[in-house]
Amino acid sequence: MYRTHNCGELRINKLGTEVTLSGWVQKVRKLGGMTFIDLRDRYGITQLVFNDETDAALSEKAQKTGREFVVKINGTVTERSNKNPEIPTGDIEIIVKKMEVLSKSEIPPFTIEENTDGGEEIRLKYRYLDLRRPVVQKGIILRHKMAQEIRNFLSNKEFLEIETPFLIKSTPEGARDFVVPSRMSDGKFYALPQSPQVFKQLLMIGGYDKYFQLTKCFRDEDFRADRQPEFTQIDCEMSFVEREDILTTFEEMTKHLFNKVMNVDFPNAFPRIEYDKAMENYGSDKPDIRFEMKIHDISKLSQNKGFKVFDDAEYVGAICAEGLATYSRKQTDKLIDFVKRPQIGAKGLVYVKYNEDGTFKSSVDKFYSPEDLKTWAEALSAKPGDLILVMSGEKSKTLTALGELRLEMGERLNLRDKNKFAPLWIIDFPLFEKDEETGQFHAMHHPFTSPKPGEFNLLETNPEAVKANAYDLVINGNEIGGGSIRIHNTEMQEKMFEHLGFTKEGAEEQFGFLMKAFKYGAPPHGGIAFGLDRWVALFNGSDSIRDVMAFPKNNAGRDLMIDAPAEIDEQQLTDLHLKIVK
Amino acid sequence: MYRTHNCGELRINKLGTEVTLSGWVQKVRKLGGMTFIDLRDRYGITQLVFNDETDAALSEKAQKTGREFVVKINGTVTERSNKNPEIPTGDIEIIVKKMEVLSKSEIPPFTIEENTDGGEEIRLKYRYLDLRRPVVQKGIILRHKMAQEIRNFLSNKEFLEIETPFLIKSTPEGARDFVVPSRMSDGKFYALPQSPQVFKQLLMIGGYDKYFQLTKCFRDEDFRADRQPEFTQIDCEMSFVEREDILTTFEEMTKHLFNKVMNVDFPNAFPRIEYDKAMENYGSDKPDIRFEMKIHDISKLSQNKGFKVFDDAEYVGAICAEGLATYSRKQTDKLIDFVKRPQIGAKGLVYVKYNEDGTFKSSVDKFYSPEDLKTWAEALSAKPGDLILVMSGEKSKTLTALGELRLEMGERLNLRDKNKFAPLWIIDFPLFEKDEETGQFHAMHHPFTSPKPGEFNLLETNPEAVKANAYDLVINGNEIGGGSIRIHNTEMQEKMFEHLGFTKEGAEEQFGFLMKAFKYGAPPHGGIAFGLDRWVALFNGSDSIRDVMAFPKNNAGRDLMIDAPAEIDEQQLTDLHLKIVK
Repeated sequence: MYRTHNCGELRINKLGTEVTLSGWVQKVRKLGGMTFIDLRDRYGITQLVFNDETDAALSEKAQKTGREFVVKINGTVTERSNKNPEIPTGDIEIIVKKMEVLSKSEIPPFTIEENTDGGEEIRLKYRYLDLRRPVVQKGIILRHKMAQEIRNFLSNKEFLEIETPFLIKSTPEGARDFVVPSRMSDGKFYALPQSPQVFKQLLMIGGYDKYFQLTKCFRDEDFRADRQPEFTQIDCEMSFVEREDILTTFEEMTKHLFNKVMNVDFPNAFPRIEYDKAMENYGSDKPDIRFEMKIHDISKLSQNKGFKVFDDAEYVGAICAEGLATYSRKQTDKLIDFVKRPQIGAKGLVYVKYNEDGTFKSSVDKFYSPEDLKTWAEALSAKPGDLILVMSGEKSKTLTALGELRLEMGERLNLRDKNKFAPLWIIDFPLFEKDEETGQFHAMHHPFTSPKPGEFNLLETNPEAVKANAYDLVINGNEIGGGSIRIHNTEMQEKMFEHLGFTKEGAEEQFGFLMKAFKYGAPPHGGIAFGLDRWVALFNGSDSIRDVMAFPKNNAGRDLMIDAPAEIDEQQLTDLHLKIVK
Repeated sequence: MYRTHNCGELRINKLGTEVTLSGWVQKVRKLGGMTFIDLRDRYGITQLVFNDETDAALSEKAQKTGREFVVKINGTVTERSNKNPEIPTGDIEIIVKKMEVLSKSEIPPFTIEENTDGGEEIRLKYRYLDLRRPVVQKGIILRHKMAQEIRNFLSNKEFLEIETPFLIKSTPEGARDFVVPSRMSDGKFYALPQSPQVFKQLLMIGGYDKYFQLTKCFRDEDFRADRQPEFTQIDCEMSFVEREDILTTFEEMTKHLFNKVMNVDFPNAFPRIEYDKAMENYGSDKPDIRFEMKIHDISKLSQNKGFKVFDDAEYVGAICAEGLATYSRKQTDKLIDFVKRPQIGAKGLVYVKYNEDGTFKSSVDKFYSPEDLKTWAEALSAKPGDLILVMSGEKSKTLTALGELRLEMGERLNLRDKNKFAPLWIIDFPLFEKDEETGQFHAMHHPFTSPKPGEFNLLETNPEAVKANAYDLVINGNEIGGGSIRIHNTEMQEKMFEHLGFTKEGAEEQFGFLMKAFKYGAPPHGGIAFGLDRWVALFNGSDSIRDVMAFPKNNAGRDLMIDAPAEIDEQQLTDLHLKIVK
């Protein structure tokens, strides 16, 4: 037997007990005729003691173990003279009588500690060692707990977890599919699912009523920071529901999760903000509402005063950064650099310092009198000591830029506390987005999303004005989930495909089976999908989803540990009827 | 709102309640001035009543709905005069006041009933309709319940569910991998996992102690009856364990599942049968022990009596089929045909009828006296009225053939009751199988399996005799799970690869990262994996795993509903740097 207890469970009430423990050597130290080992496993750390005098040979053996050796010991639980209140086992230690080295370890390429000295590349290469670090373990354990809570919550509500297939068909739309060549059918391919969307709709048509699944999805995107080619979705769908049913069910699930996992309660309903309002007030459809700092439209107050930049702009907007009137010229210049970065791409930034003494100092003093600036301050409810930041230009772009600036200022003012959570629903998305260049409509959510009730008629006359019956769950500026009420009849779906520029044949080829399914009694239905990786990262206080995945790939989509993707045998290629074109 | 109740929950205590229901029209019938609709959803069937006199228009509307229409109704719960004790809602019906057709349906291509008139091809093509059949729903719901029970059981035992990656590296070993071309790395490929074996071992090395995962695995095999290219595994691994720890844990899980899902209890420990004994007694390493009918070695009793066939054979074995001495010549001839089929491939079969009157009649009366045959009967504990069936030849082949014959006779004697369950463990497998043609050793389980403790030394001197520390869970003749204690050090693993004919370079290229991981403190570990599809099918009484998968592929690996695999765009191929070779 390798152990009677794990390394995290022994307490003072076990004094005198003979125990067997196994684990990793965290640290070895010699101190005043004694040798100490901190023995570690997933559950904690227990201190082992070897008396150099009573059993010199054993002590020596202990001293020869190195970091990350795996050992098994027998010994007696004893009270520590020098207690450690930092760890739950800190009142006791084990007087070791016997020790066996189960596995040796070479010196690890980085320290296995909370704050390691290893860079990300080497930690990904030796991920099995990185996985031993307490901070990584915490994320993986949290992920398990969240998944369990979600499954139990939904199961108790009569949802069924149903597995949908991974080897499906490629749909040349949206992001790229990963494809899988078929050996049995020459020149044909399966595709890996970007989401189980169509299958969950078919399950509703199949009468399953309430479905969920925690499942991997795949997108062959050009990798950006913190994107992974495979990611996990909490995918849900319900029949005979309206938007309210979905929001109620999943707001309850979200609150349940906050309560069970984070011990945070939300007594009130989550705010619901229309997409248009979110864009106007926060410059984002995933606003971080942990802090106020709303964007205000000061077009009327700022135009026609001779400042050509504003006069020519479709829109002038501003935010108020509390208490930052003391910003130096250097600091305001850096802010201008910030908004000019390609990620934001603004042309510039106007600032107005509302000084403590009530005076104004701005970068546009030439054009605006203190009285003018006072009206801006009033519109923004700015107080003496605050800094007003103004941007102008095409409305939607300016709002987006102001939204980014707002997040930056929130960060600088420490208003984005990782331990504070502000969930909300964004509702009433536009059904379509128009491609500026081609004039082509795209589905903002996806092509199966239904228009809001009562807006069906607008579809013909003014498609751009049609609101989708769609919704997103946003927490702390992260889109955690999104969904919609779906179209459930053939005519409406055909009309949708038409608006999206599908030919009849193209729609038939891609989604013929779904259109056909609609003809055999499709119930009204809708659903939502959450990004599990992002949600766990948020709860874990991690900046990257890589921190909460056991074996993530790097930003180039490579698994550095197993060295994949890799070349395959010539024979495999031949069997698949494929040739590589260099 | 679409419904106040579902179609399975209303009872007599709700008389007089105004309700709203939505569901599918199962059946419409007119009877004595009334129109009835059976309204169906996942939860049950509720009878709707329309009075042709009081609201003729509504009645007519009801009569016009067809099978599988989706309707919403408002009405009052009333007591039925003609109660139906067959269904839980059979005491009540709904007097309908209002009805809305939510979706029409064309006439389904097959009947949506327990026993349908549709063949498998058409049911797979319209799987969303097949999924509405109660018998299919029962399997899918059972699957959900089993998965939930497994997850909760293991979570309560401190197992963590950890997701391992799907885009990994191809290992040209065992079954074929499905591969995924990488767009970002020209000419390189990911592979889909055949199992998470290596990753779960790395998780043990990473210190996660107890891991499980319900996950899809992929094998590009030449499809045989009841194989699917993607299937679901309950994958488990534990650290600091010996075989006994694994068997105890998962026997408890199995009993828990039987209890919670099937309401079947096993008060005693599951039998454990050594591989060699299983082969000798049942001619199979997955014996169906719902019935006895053991194989007996009668070589000594049957050889050297002048019957050349037996005299020349390495082995002569027999089984006793109770009460079948009355078999006619035609019936015994058919048994001979049965064992001669290519699936079994035996040359023939000798029978001995132990007649009710105590006499013997055999196909080898020329060579054996009644006294000789009596010794056979005694060896088999045969009674008058029984039929003894004898086969001979090379020992292991003869045992396998007798094993098949045993199953056939068990079937004929109705000894394989679907409602009876007989779980057992098979232990002490050989570590290696020898390829008869090449003389090459193969790992019987997989190359990471450890030899049994105490047999390490045999590895050099007599590898064929080495027993693996491996085990299978068998229920009713199905291998439901299998696993082993793993090798956890580099030297042993290197020796294993050597025996399996890997070059040092080949082993390094394929499994270098695992060998390297062993060098940084690998704990002793072991695990097991269960086939969820097979287990659900067994509990569901289904012959095929397709019955318990929502969207199965056909025997040629095609999804007939979505028509996959399919051709992909030229552009997609170009992006992937691939060309199809016809």
